[in-house]
Amino acid sequence: MRKTIVELLKNAGENFISGESIAGKLGISRTAVWKHIRKLRENGYEIISRERHGYKLKDAPDLLLPGEIQIGLDTKIIGAEMDYHPSVDSTNRVAKALAYHGAAEGTIVVAEEQTGGKGRLERNYFSPRGKGIWFSVILRPNLLPKDAPKCTLMAAVAVAEAMERFKLKPAIKWPNDLMFDGRKLVGILTEMTGEIGKITYIVIGVGINVNISRDEFPAELQPIATSLLEMNGGEAISRVQFFRAVLEEFDKIYRDVTASGFDNVLNRWRKFNVTLGKVVRVISTGDGGESFSGKAVDINADGALVVETADGLRTVYAGDVSIR
Amino acid sequence: MRKTIVELLKNAGENFISGESIAGKLGISRTAVWKHIRKLRENGYEIISRERHGYKLKDAPDLLLPGEIQIGLDTKIIGAEMDYHPSVDSTNRVAKALAYHGAAEGTIVVAEEQTGGKGRLERNYFSPRGKGIWFSVILRPNLLPKDAPKCTLMAAVAVAEAMERFKLKPAIKWPNDLMFDGRKLVGILTEMTGEIGKITYIVIGVGINVNISRDEFPAELQPIATSLLEMNGGEAISRVQFFRAVLEEFDKIYRDVTASGFDNVLNRWRKFNVTLGKVVRVISTGDGGESFSGKAVDINADGALVVETADGLRTVYAGDVSIR
Repeated sequence: MRKTIVELLKNAGENFISGESIAGKLGISRTAVWKHIRKLRENGYEIISRERHGYKLKDAPDLLLPGEIQIGLDTKIIGAEMDYHPSVDSTNRVAKALAYHGAAEGTIVVAEEQTGGKGRLERNYFSPRGKGIWFSVILRPNLLPKDAPKCTLMAAVAVAEAMERFKLKPAIKWPNDLMFDGRKLVGILTEMTGEIGKITYIVIGVGINVNISRDEFPAELQPIATSLLEMNGGEAISRVQFFRAVLEEFDKIYRDVTASGFDNVLNRWRKFNVTLGKVVRVISTGDGGESFSGKAVDINADGALVVETADGLRTVYAGDVSIR
Repeated sequence: MRKTIVELLKNAGENFISGESIAGKLGISRTAVWKHIRKLRENGYEIISRERHGYKLKDAPDLLLPGEIQIGLDTKIIGAEMDYHPSVDSTNRVAKALAYHGAAEGTIVVAEEQTGGKGRLERNYFSPRGKGIWFSVILRPNLLPKDAPKCTLMAAVAVAEAMERFKLKPAIKWPNDLMFDGRKLVGILTEMTGEIGKITYIVIGVGINVNISRDEFPAELQPIATSLLEMNGGEAISRVQFFRAVLEEFDKIYRDVTASGFDNVLNRWRKFNVTLGKVVRVISTGDGGESFSGKAVDINADGALVVETADGLRTVYAGDVSIR
């Protein structure tokens, strides 16, 4: 309902649109219209009202409100349902709870800030209010659990494609970190629930550092984290527009995966990656946290990293990789 | 508390033990003792009470009560916590809910009957009251998600080892069905939740057909299902004793896995299996349910079945296998 009111206001452009006209189009009372307008203002929309003229939209907020995101959003699966939070501990936690209770495939959980955002292995993820895009998506693909790591590559590719739309050159470090200048722009955490032969649901959490300036990062993150703002020469990026681009690319590539498998994901990943061909140091997550160095030569059909070491080829399924 | 009362009664054998003596040993009132006795009777214990003599245990029920199972149970992890249900929809559903909310590793959910027991891919699992052992165990191993299929082999091996204790010859069909005379004795359903590099928890559901006679199976199951009773020449098996054996073998092999990996599981599995070396028909769960035939030649390090077909070797991660 509020989404439609925002659309009507936007379509009216510089003109006022009367409360009566809005009420008529929506089949609700003028009082109900007024209540929705008040709620929109609370959410950051600047709406001018003038007696006998009606309402005019002055400024839409750069908030990730479902109504704002879904206007003109060209997706079939991703974002059909959106669960919005001004503040939340962790979008992945909420998404897992929703998925556990049966939420539909494509449901998005998005927040303006996370107070307990998490990366891999329970590491904290800095997620300040209004400065990034912190969201999780629920998927229910007809895939085997061993395909889950490729879904995390898919998410990295979707963000990379969105960056290209904004003329920003993506660089993916295996498996799914988007990097700029050796520092991290985007983190992805994939969590999966399933039985042996079947994924029940998969939750992919994505944290995109959008408009965080250097001095807004905590000191300990400054050497290792960066943002689209920095990459874009200090010019802010519209979170709403970038989020829409990510959801659209995500939707496109996910539908391609369900129709034709992961070939395109792996090929696109190879195109964007900055790991292959480099000497890397690996701290493996399995095998008791063993570490070793070698040349990253490829990803295999499972999305695992193949490293050429002095002792031969090694396959890394999960771990931390630093490029030498 | 009730477990201790049962132990005291058992230790007393044919003798009566006074309410006062029990009360003294437990540091509770005689009225409290009486309430526990009443509860035990409700649970199927036949306890005789005689004025000025006290209590005597006439018959312990063949119920899978925690107090009954845990007496003399020689395990370190598995079964330290037990959640008992006279009737439940599905022990895996309960165990997943408990695990999701943080239940400890080794927690067991057990039921006398399941009203909505499930096998792989949402198939129904026949679980009549008092006739089988329907339980689920929660594990939190420090393993990668790709190791989960080997945990399901481990569960099959644990049941096989328990069968050997009862002089019953185990036969495992890949991956985890225990068979007798070409029909299924035991079904196992493993469900896992984790992130890419780490299992958060794994729930292994085990359904053991213990004392189900041929005509107690529904008509459609009679050609494909059997029970330990049938295998044992019509002689009933104590569910309590068999359950204890399964938990002890499970505990032993799980501790071996966490200490030394899956080598022993895979070797024991190979010893008990009846699939390798046979011509099999495979209906694969991934790859759009494709089916093909070939000779099962081995399981690989991931526990997947390797099948030699006319077109070369194929690796099966999940699927239905029938032996020709």
